[in-house]
Amino acid sequence: MTRARLQDICEEELLSRLFPLFRGAAGPAEVLLGPGDDAAVLAAPSAAVVLTTDSMVRGRDWHDDWSSPTEVGRKVVAQNIADIAAMGAVPTGLLVAIAADPATEVEWALSLAEGIAQAAREAGAPVLGGDLSSAAEGSIVVGITAVGDLQGRRAVRRDGALVGDLVAVRGSLGRSGGGLQLLLAGRGRTHLDPPLGDADDPLARAIEVLCRVHRSTEDVPWRAGPEAADAGATAMIDLSDGLVRDLGRVAGASGVRIELDGEALAAFATGPLTLALGAEEAMRQVLSGGEEHSLAATFPRAAVPDGWEVIGVCADGSGEVLVDGEVPPVTGWDHFSG
Amino acid sequence: MTRARLQDICEEELLSRLFPLFRGAAGPAEVLLGPGDDAAVLAAPSAAVVLTTDSMVRGRDWHDDWSSPTEVGRKVVAQNIADIAAMGAVPTGLLVAIAADPATEVEWALSLAEGIAQAAREAGAPVLGGDLSSAAEGSIVVGITAVGDLQGRRAVRRDGALVGDLVAVRGSLGRSGGGLQLLLAGRGRTHLDPPLGDADDPLARAIEVLCRVHRSTEDVPWRAGPEAADAGATAMIDLSDGLVRDLGRVAGASGVRIELDGEALAAFATGPLTLALGAEEAMRQVLSGGEEHSLAATFPRAAVPDGWEVIGVCADGSGEVLVDGEVPPVTGWDHFSG
Repeated sequence: MTRARLQDICEEELLSRLFPLFRGAAGPAEVLLGPGDDAAVLAAPSAAVVLTTDSMVRGRDWHDDWSSPTEVGRKVVAQNIADIAAMGAVPTGLLVAIAADPATEVEWALSLAEGIAQAAREAGAPVLGGDLSSAAEGSIVVGITAVGDLQGRRAVRRDGALVGDLVAVRGSLGRSGGGLQLLLAGRGRTHLDPPLGDADDPLARAIEVLCRVHRSTEDVPWRAGPEAADAGATAMIDLSDGLVRDLGRVAGASGVRIELDGEALAAFATGPLTLALGAEEAMRQVLSGGEEHSLAATFPRAAVPDGWEVIGVCADGSGEVLVDGEVPPVTGWDHFSG
Repeated sequence: MTRARLQDICEEELLSRLFPLFRGAAGPAEVLLGPGDDAAVLAAPSAAVVLTTDSMVRGRDWHDDWSSPTEVGRKVVAQNIADIAAMGAVPTGLLVAIAADPATEVEWALSLAEGIAQAAREAGAPVLGGDLSSAAEGSIVVGITAVGDLQGRRAVRRDGALVGDLVAVRGSLGRSGGGLQLLLAGRGRTHLDPPLGDADDPLARAIEVLCRVHRSTEDVPWRAGPEAADAGATAMIDLSDGLVRDLGRVAGASGVRIELDGEALAAFATGPLTLALGAEEAMRQVLSGGEEHSLAATFPRAAVPDGWEVIGVCADGSGEVLVDGEVPPVTGWDHFSG
């Protein structure tokens, strides 16, 4: 049986199959005009919008033999939602731009859209519109633009951390990076592997957890962003390029030194990470693993909300990030030089 | 001399060279937080935003031996601005997502950004943020999301045309399609050709005009969109896929038949189009040439504003577009089946 490819159906047929997938999402801002016209119209309840864009590229940001199209769709939305949350805003809408090889299977594209739609519904961010383009052989680029609303809050920037503020994390650390490490080493679990049964051992379960996080970015704590803003967060960032690198951006923009507590960080390395990778590699992933999309923020000492784990403190300085007083031996991820 | 490529410099150096290009654009909505944080914050003066996204793909939407990177940057912005204008809104901001082969020359990327920045300044739509990704060998995808504000107007949709309304166009028809035709036939002028001198003949000038429009979409009449809305336009659309195909969308959504006047359309085919392509092909491009990004709208009979050319009328029907009472022999452009 040959499977239909994008080049086999006309654009309007494809759109007529995509649009229904995106129905039913509703969020805090009214969609005044949805997909299908030249542009969409979205209410901006607080007379300002928060805007971000983030793309995923086949072969660079995902591999077809590791990740299902639904997982890719969930992940690219999660990355964008995390950026909105890190400003203290709630997501209100999404735009989707897909550039794909015309030989891409229609089913693959529909499953990608289903993943985008699932994550959009969960985040209360309806898909407002999009763009379809044909791309070179083998190439697929999925770009999302997310819109958010501050609901009257001021935006929490990277440059507001003050000396004496505590540094805290909401969500996990190192799991996505750990999953990537396992997949690169050929020890990972992919979307093609059969589901685990009751008899599978804790190691298999640990590997499954880490790889699933890498493949689809489960559990972005996006509601915690606005909560942190309400609690008085002085700075906040989405952890996309690794804890130390991202906190370095907060420290640099704010003009402080961030002193992290190795023991507090070690708590993030326990469980699946250490079981699957050993203690040393687990700790390396906690410090430098990318694409976790947890939130890190700084708070006045008495203001850290429930659910946030304190991992350090802001001191006098100019952009350094230290762990137990020393420069950690980690860098991070660069898109072009790798 | 070897020229630096994206893979030779780190992402932060690239960003530090891109950001200054985008400074200095100002528009009708205040930028509350510009590029450099997790997300940008843009004022939405009328408590709603108009949103659209449109991408260009190397080798599909442009050819490096035809178009300079500055022209590509100008064109991708123009396409998005036209969509905003077609709703009756003014542009207020842009997001830029670039996925590029790491072997792309840094100078090429900076010239692309310069084109985006030029068009952003001209439209009063500051670049608010963006995303850089590495892509497969040879691949470059440039995605723009444009934001607009209705300034208290209601959005002009595609589905509001009424029987008896006049159909009018603001801007040119067929020039971009004509330029593409010339370039495909090897008769075009590219960004690599030397500038024309005083001695060059009218044919060379005609070819230059058409090809330049195809390469960079000059003169999108975006201010005419809000003016049309103020004048009472009942429906409006950006002409991206060809006049007949796009008006078919208005006719279909509105439940009318659009009757076009061949003589009025022929006026658009005179001048450079007929000189370069002959009368028959010129008329074909007027009816079906894509990527013109002029505006078409329907108006009550007394409401057509200055600068708009009446080309037809809305009659009882269900989605047909006729020219002098006959179905014109044109289709249009499909992204995947070509």
